[in-house]
Amino acid sequence: MRIIESVSEMQQQADMWRGEGKRIALVPTMGYLHAGHLTLMQKARTHADIVVMSVFVNPTQFGPGEDFERYPRDFENDIRLATEVGVDAAFSPEAAEMYPEGYQTYVDVTRVTLPLCGKSRPGHFRGVTTVVNKLFNIVKPHVAMFGEKDFQQLVTIRRMVKDLNMDVEVLGHPIVRESDGLALSSRNVYLTSEQRQEALRLSQSLREAQTLIQSGERRSDIILKRVREILKAGKDMRIDYAELRHPETLEEVSRIDGPTLLALAVFLGTTRLIDNCVLNIPQ
Amino acid sequence: MRIIESVSEMQQQADMWRGEGKRIALVPTMGYLHAGHLTLMQKARTHADIVVMSVFVNPTQFGPGEDFERYPRDFENDIRLATEVGVDAAFSPEAAEMYPEGYQTYVDVTRVTLPLCGKSRPGHFRGVTTVVNKLFNIVKPHVAMFGEKDFQQLVTIRRMVKDLNMDVEVLGHPIVRESDGLALSSRNVYLTSEQRQEALRLSQSLREAQTLIQSGERRSDIILKRVREILKAGKDMRIDYAELRHPETLEEVSRIDGPTLLALAVFLGTTRLIDNCVLNIPQ
Repeated sequence: MRIIESVSEMQQQADMWRGEGKRIALVPTMGYLHAGHLTLMQKARTHADIVVMSVFVNPTQFGPGEDFERYPRDFENDIRLATEVGVDAAFSPEAAEMYPEGYQTYVDVTRVTLPLCGKSRPGHFRGVTTVVNKLFNIVKPHVAMFGEKDFQQLVTIRRMVKDLNMDVEVLGHPIVRESDGLALSSRNVYLTSEQRQEALRLSQSLREAQTLIQSGERRSDIILKRVREILKAGKDMRIDYAELRHPETLEEVSRIDGPTLLALAVFLGTTRLIDNCVLNIPQ
Repeated sequence: MRIIESVSEMQQQADMWRGEGKRIALVPTMGYLHAGHLTLMQKARTHADIVVMSVFVNPTQFGPGEDFERYPRDFENDIRLATEVGVDAAFSPEAAEMYPEGYQTYVDVTRVTLPLCGKSRPGHFRGVTTVVNKLFNIVKPHVAMFGEKDFQQLVTIRRMVKDLNMDVEVLGHPIVRESDGLALSSRNVYLTSEQRQEALRLSQSLREAQTLIQSGERRSDIILKRVREILKAGKDMRIDYAELRHPETLEEVSRIDGPTLLALAVFLGTTRLIDNCVLNIPQ
């Protein structure tokens, strides 16, 4: 496993691989890897000759008062885990390498970033699109892999790539869950054991919504009412949002007549968790 | 001369050239070529195996009430002139190919775009950086050439390329002038013969400023006072701005102690003209 910290070294290495006709896959991460990340890396391997992961806790996607400082980090373990799944290189720059003095350029995707996490976390997606744009220019991947847990992030990055004509194939991968349904997240480490139990309400409510669809319900307000009831029954849980939206435009959906995103965000104490699924009407 | 109108065709052609180890130069233009553009293309030839010009009157860099509709166009003549200087390909997309329905992504360089033309033309540089970002992703140049007449544009693009780690070398080229000093511009075609005569005050005032520097003057206010006197003496001329600024940060300069940008914008009737020079202190 090659560890690269410098932008210019990473670009030179990418040029070398490309010159040899090799296909490059990038898995962008903020480190503290879990099985969800590792699945992305294994999947990346099936699409490319070279798999690069980036490990960078990007300051510009955290708002004031968010968990940038305490975001969990364990670089040595990340390298060990990524090596086991055959990752070829880790790009892990310092913040000053990515945002040197005088830095002043940002990429904005203006509409799909407005609702959901964009509403709760102003500036978050501007930070995400900017750093992903940079990472694509630095690692020069043919294909990049993102988990569907951050569904709005995936939609936003697809939109950026399409709009700016970036020649990168963006692939999403289904959420990886614990056996009891909890979506894997580096932030799960913040949870007390009681909170972890409460957090199961997220996946429970997603399953309940799918059951309602199966039984013929199509009205968004009815489905969301039931989802909110399940979430609200959690004693330490506060709902940030629970919404039904079009899976590409992220526009609100009042009646389910095709694949529809059910997106959830809650606070458990000070920890913010998200989860989602795309509801499908039975054939 | 190959004429390409489709983004995907241009990207495939760029990949093919890169695969053959060829160096690509891009000269972005809005068409209606003059000797300034052609000089950029000839210069580009010395830096690359393949010279691509883009011809695209980019709607997003024009504000409401500006001259997007009447901006001069003569594509056939552009192709003829570019062929004569050995340009290999022209990328000339329709607006709908560049900004299809649902388009919503913009690149913002936040500080160097604030003064000068950025102040007079809100949104202009967002349009410029966005389209240039797209053109770089589409044409995949190793090097791109820009004229120094749009000095703030050049500074802004250099900043975007550096900040977003775009692997493109940005080269500026000195302003090309008529023998009487008028900077070449596609917009000169708007001028009446009286206005064209008045427009010479731009280059006259730049020369006067350099003369003041030569004679030992270092105070910005004194230099700008003299520059404004010359410009104001034009009967149909209205000053938009006349400023002395640092040539990279574009911060205001109150005392000349190194290379300093003198940037001018005026209106002659409804036509807006810009000109500039970098003042150098004699050794």
